[in-house]
Amino acid sequence: MSSGGEMKEDCHGWAARDPSGLLSPYKFGRRAVRSDDVSLKITHCGVCYADVVWTKNKFGDSKYPVVPGHEIAGIVQEVGSNVHHFKVGDHVGVGTYIDSCRDCEYCGMYMDVYCSKGAVSTFNSIDADGMVTKGGYSSYIVVHERYCFRIPNDLPLALAAPLLCAGITVYSPMIRHKMNQPGKSLGVIGLGGLGHLAVKFGKAFGLSVTVFSTSISKKDEALNKLGADNFVISSDEEQMKAMANSLNFIIDSASGDHPIDQYMPLLKTSGSFVLVGVPSEIKVHPISLIMGMKTISGSGTGGTKETQEMLDFCATQKIYPEIEIIPIEYINEALERMIKRDVKYRFVIDIGNSLK
Amino acid sequence: MSSGGEMKEDCHGWAARDPSGLLSPYKFGRRAVRSDDVSLKITHCGVCYADVVWTKNKFGDSKYPVVPGHEIAGIVQEVGSNVHHFKVGDHVGVGTYIDSCRDCEYCGMYMDVYCSKGAVSTFNSIDADGMVTKGGYSSYIVVHERYCFRIPNDLPLALAAPLLCAGITVYSPMIRHKMNQPGKSLGVIGLGGLGHLAVKFGKAFGLSVTVFSTSISKKDEALNKLGADNFVISSDEEQMKAMANSLNFIIDSASGDHPIDQYMPLLKTSGSFVLVGVPSEIKVHPISLIMGMKTISGSGTGGTKETQEMLDFCATQKIYPEIEIIPIEYINEALERMIKRDVKYRFVIDIGNSLK
Repeated sequence: MSSGGEMKEDCHGWAARDPSGLLSPYKFGRRAVRSDDVSLKITHCGVCYADVVWTKNKFGDSKYPVVPGHEIAGIVQEVGSNVHHFKVGDHVGVGTYIDSCRDCEYCGMYMDVYCSKGAVSTFNSIDADGMVTKGGYSSYIVVHERYCFRIPNDLPLALAAPLLCAGITVYSPMIRHKMNQPGKSLGVIGLGGLGHLAVKFGKAFGLSVTVFSTSISKKDEALNKLGADNFVISSDEEQMKAMANSLNFIIDSASGDHPIDQYMPLLKTSGSFVLVGVPSEIKVHPISLIMGMKTISGSGTGGTKETQEMLDFCATQKIYPEIEIIPIEYINEALERMIKRDVKYRFVIDIGNSLK
Repeated sequence: MSSGGEMKEDCHGWAARDPSGLLSPYKFGRRAVRSDDVSLKITHCGVCYADVVWTKNKFGDSKYPVVPGHEIAGIVQEVGSNVHHFKVGDHVGVGTYIDSCRDCEYCGMYMDVYCSKGAVSTFNSIDADGMVTKGGYSSYIVVHERYCFRIPNDLPLALAAPLLCAGITVYSPMIRHKMNQPGKSLGVIGLGGLGHLAVKFGKAFGLSVTVFSTSISKKDEALNKLGADNFVISSDEEQMKAMANSLNFIIDSASGDHPIDQYMPLLKTSGSFVLVGVPSEIKVHPISLIMGMKTISGSGTGGTKETQEMLDFCATQKIYPEIEIIPIEYINEALERMIKRDVKYRFVIDIGNSLK
C-alpha cells in the first residue's frame, strides 16, 4: 500500500496540524483489509492525556497531521480471510498499540506492549508499511486481529473505551503485583482517569482502598460514588502520619510533580509502590526502600492477553469508568479541560453520532 | 540484671568513646545466660561499614561507649536450660540483630529483621533490659538462641564471619527476586564487601555476571579471581551502551553517590534493580521504570531462617569471602583503610588470638 497511490481517502477524522494542538476535520486513507486484519467502525474513543502530549508535540516527535486516540471501541465491519476470532457485527476494542513483531520473548508471552522490536503505537508511530499510524478520533480503523479485543455484549461500548488504556494501565500492575488478594490494603494517589479505575478495581479485588488527594473536593465522590474506604489529604501531615505502615500497595496515578518519598513510610514491609503517572522525576532516599525491603515499579499499559482478561473481568464485575460523553466538535475544549483536570473522570467521544 | 550491680566486667572489648571513632580497649559486663540464651566465645568478627557509621556517630544516635561488630563467629561456651539447637563446642554466628518480638507477622515468617516492634541491633541499640547492646569487637556475647546460627564445620569461622552481614545482605534479595535461575544475567555495581559476594553468589546460581566499576584496577580480579563473566567501566558510555537491554537483575552495592538512572536501560523488560548500598539519594526518570515495567527495590539484611540457609549454602558451595585477617590492635587503621576502600574485600578481626 505504501507504494501505491490508490488508497481511498474515506476515513473521516480530526487531526492536529501543528504544536498548537488544535484539532479540526481531516480526511485520510486506511490500508485495505489484509487476511489477518479486522476493520472496525469506531463508535467511541476515550480521551487520554497522551492525546495532549502528541497533538501539542510535548515530546518533540509528533508527526503531523496527528490523529490521536487510543481508547477505541466499535463494531466489526469487515474481516480478512484468515481472521478467526471476530466476525462482522462483533463489539471490539483497540488500545495503545496495533502491531508488534509477534516473535520475540515478550510477544511470546503476550506481553506484546514490551515487544523487543518495539510495539507500534496506535497513533503517531511508524507502521510496518512506513505509514504514520492514525488513531481513534476517526470513523474507522484497520488492525491485525491480535491487537483487537472482544468487548462483551453487556459492557456498553462507551464505557469500554477508557478501559483500553486507563483501565489496562492500572489493571496490569495490580495483577502483576498480586493486588488481587482480598483483605490487603491499597493506596491510590490521584483521582483522575487512571486513579478512579484503580479504586474500582481495588474494591472489586476485595482491598481496603485509601485515596490520597490534594483536594478535599474529591472526598465525597471518592467515598460515596467510587466506594473508597478512606480519604487522605496528602498535604496534611497528621493524616499522613496516621497512615504509617498501613498499606500493602500504592498506585501513583498523579501526573503532576509531587513528592514520592513521603509515601514510603505508609507502606508496610515488602510493600509495592507502582508508578503509572509520569511526574518529572522520582526521588527517594535509599533508606526509605531498604528499611522494609520496599519496591518502586513502573508499568506501561499491558499485554494483549491480560487486556482481554481485564475487559471480561470488567463486564462480569460491572466495573464501569465514570465518563462524560462529548461530540467530536467539543474535543478542543475537552482537551483544555483535561489539562486543567476538569473532568470526572474520562471524556469519551461519541464518534458514531458526531463524526459522520 | 539491669537493676542489679553485680554484673561481672569480664568481657574484653574495644570501644569508641566519642565521634573521633578511635577505638581502644574497654571492659564491660554481659548478662548472665538465661534459659533460651547461648553464650559464645568470639573467635572472629568481620568489619562492616556500619562500624564506621556508629563509632563516628554519622547518624547522630551513637550511644558511647560503642563496641561495634555484627559479623560474629565463635564457639558455644555455655547454653541455657531451654536451648535446643546448640551445645557447648558448636561453631555459631551472630549477625546484625540479637532480638525481636517473636510475635508479629514478620517474626512469624522468620523475617525477624523486619519485626513490627523493631529488631534489636547487635550494637548501639537498646536491649529489652534497657542496656545498650555491644557488638562483636569483644571476647564473648550472650544472645537468645533464635538469633544464633549454626556454622557448618567445613566453613572456617574466619570466612563465615562476613557472611553474617555482607553475605545475607546480598543473598536475601537475590533469593527474593528469584536471581537463582541459571542462565539469567546479573549486573553488580561496586566491588567491595557486599559486591564481591554478590558476584560469587551469582556464579553459584548459574548467572552470567557483569561487574560495573569506576576503576579498571579491579578488572583482573573481578574476572580471574571472583569469576565474573564481564567487566564494564561505568563511566565509559560506549561500554554502557553495549550492555543495553541485557540484564535481568542488577545489585547496587556501591555506597558512594553515583547515578542510578544510567543503569535502567541496561535492564531487560521486567528487570529488577536492588539497592543494598546507601547512596545519598535515588533519582530516576519515571519513564525509565514505566517503559519495561522495571523495579527498584531496597533490602536490609535478612531473616533468621534465610540466614541459616545462606550459611549452609555457602558451606556446600564453598562460597568464601575474600578476607584480610587482622589483629584487634590494627582496627583503627583498618577502619581508615575501609573508608578509603583499601581492602580486598573484608577485614576480619582475629578476636581469638588478639583479644585475650
